[in-house]
Amino acid sequence: MTILTRVQLKAPYLLLIGAETDATYAKTALGLVQWCPEKVVGQLRFEGATVDLGVPDLSVAEAAERGCGSLVIGVAPVGGVVPDSWWSVINEAARAGLDIVSGLHLRLADREDLAEAAKHSHARLVDVRVPPAGLPVGTGKKRSGRRILTVAADCAIGKKYAALALHRALLDLDVDATYRATGQTGIMIAGEGLPIDAVVADFISGAAETLSPPNDPDHFDVVEGQGSIFHPGYSGVALGLMHGSQPDGFVVCHDPRRKVVSGWPHYDIPPLAEVIETHMMMGRRTNPDIRCVGVSVNTKGMPETERSDLLQALAEETGLPCIDPLVDGAGAIARYAVKHLSS
Amino acid sequence: MTILTRVQLKAPYLLLIGAETDATYAKTALGLVQWCPEKVVGQLRFEGATVDLGVPDLSVAEAAERGCGSLVIGVAPVGGVVPDSWWSVINEAARAGLDIVSGLHLRLADREDLAEAAKHSHARLVDVRVPPAGLPVGTGKKRSGRRILTVAADCAIGKKYAALALHRALLDLDVDATYRATGQTGIMIAGEGLPIDAVVADFISGAAETLSPPNDPDHFDVVEGQGSIFHPGYSGVALGLMHGSQPDGFVVCHDPRRKVVSGWPHYDIPPLAEVIETHMMMGRRTNPDIRCVGVSVNTKGMPETERSDLLQALAEETGLPCIDPLVDGAGAIARYAVKHLSS
Repeated sequence: MTILTRVQLKAPYLLLIGAETDATYAKTALGLVQWCPEKVVGQLRFEGATVDLGVPDLSVAEAAERGCGSLVIGVAPVGGVVPDSWWSVINEAARAGLDIVSGLHLRLADREDLAEAAKHSHARLVDVRVPPAGLPVGTGKKRSGRRILTVAADCAIGKKYAALALHRALLDLDVDATYRATGQTGIMIAGEGLPIDAVVADFISGAAETLSPPNDPDHFDVVEGQGSIFHPGYSGVALGLMHGSQPDGFVVCHDPRRKVVSGWPHYDIPPLAEVIETHMMMGRRTNPDIRCVGVSVNTKGMPETERSDLLQALAEETGLPCIDPLVDGAGAIARYAVKHLSS
Repeated sequence: MTILTRVQLKAPYLLLIGAETDATYAKTALGLVQWCPEKVVGQLRFEGATVDLGVPDLSVAEAAERGCGSLVIGVAPVGGVVPDSWWSVINEAARAGLDIVSGLHLRLADREDLAEAAKHSHARLVDVRVPPAGLPVGTGKKRSGRRILTVAADCAIGKKYAALALHRALLDLDVDATYRATGQTGIMIAGEGLPIDAVVADFISGAAETLSPPNDPDHFDVVEGQGSIFHPGYSGVALGLMHGSQPDGFVVCHDPRRKVVSGWPHYDIPPLAEVIETHMMMGRRTNPDIRCVGVSVNTKGMPETERSDLLQALAEETGLPCIDPLVDGAGAIARYAVKHLSS
């Protein structure tokens, strides 16, 4: 067995949608088509499916013929339970030699029929929630290359999206850049990464170091943030990730309408200035030159005037580029980062 | 199988010393005799052993007769490898129905002969480095009772010792108090606890909440700190532990002669005032009333004048009780904590 220091996936993917009728549950598959269409060979849908990713409908055999590397379970079924009817297709894909990629809570290898099928064809069963073995303790040693981390005062507030948008904006500027995924959907999009919140506590910053290794001085890693150093449940993940990533710059993801921590309503969201200052202070420990390079704002549904007034006010308050990546892209932050972080 | 929310051990213990000739490697056994002699029934030594814990030499059969609950592997052999000759005795203890308790890196259940022996007698094989399953995510909800956490700017600087000394000093004041262990030796001493650095990252603060549950308003939990929020390798553990513990008070363990992080020489130890202030700032997130209640200083080997001058200078600087628990005990911190933290 190959020893991997990261989860690494085999593209291109066939996306299993099942009979899904609600796009909300197909978020992973939709994210893959949006962010890495070049890695998607097709979709596999069952009778009754109304969700359409806009890519070719393929059977397992057709996908295999086109050189498909992995069948990706692209839907998160309610309760995490995969309908029985899916397993015959998943087994068929494993028998055809396709890796099976899952972000579900169940362990693929626990399905005996699937394990058997995969064994014969040497297909891998990849649970993207499961970190590889042998992660090191963080060394804290300075690495070459530039790093930007997306952070926030809460979870589920746009850290993955902001990182993907910033990565794309850097590429648009012809900057050498890599997206570093820390969560399951991000890992599927990038084709590799480390599920940082599933790592054993002692190895969080070591995992972050492994994820963004030394690189060319002008290369940028854009690291997907997880959790929040302010979060009563997930602060350990966030601080270890920041210390291990040693970011030169960080982008704060901000939702002005979110007043309390989602799911933890007894916790206020701290003011933006405090979010920036606290990350500066804690981040300096492993990178004394850390700075904030922008604010990624969720302005969904805001009237245009309100939106532009808000972004302008935030820009005046922070002196930083403030954008909504869904509307504006992250070009302004990319330009600011290249200007202020380049060696 | 019983579902445990913590690692729980069965006292009293028979301490396996083997043929140890170097007290350094018998630290766990020595700690047990020092801090919980009432839990120790005897020592089990092989020919050639020169380390003597000052407790009765017993065979497995003799210990079993005296109602022994567990055989504790009290030595950390060089390289973590248990000599072959030990296993026959360990198996004998398991056959006699004693739980086997280990803080070694190997998993006891991986020894087939031992697993077989334990199965027949219903002895448990307890790896104190392995956290129990089913830990929750931290809720951040305020719990009744008082909590004190020991913290520091580095590892291996006296957090366990300070917590044990403070716990004892609180009991000496007739305060209802519990020591909450987060590391392997601490867990053996307390007879229960959670190896916080071995928990999956998402559950660090949830584990800390589980470890110090709601209690009587006047009850004190003294939580053994792990890692450091300043540590490039272990900051995630330390912040999650602090946020989950919601300490009302914290004690800083301080070694004035330690200038850099042990094993991470490119990291300075921050000044004491910064250590206090940063813990205040980050700790406020889950306990707005957090305060520092004392400094536990390592003065080992210092001439008496230098020692008392140092403690006095630190007391003037911080306005807090500053003691060396090995010399002075932790009574001064206990009195300060009771005075300032009681409801």
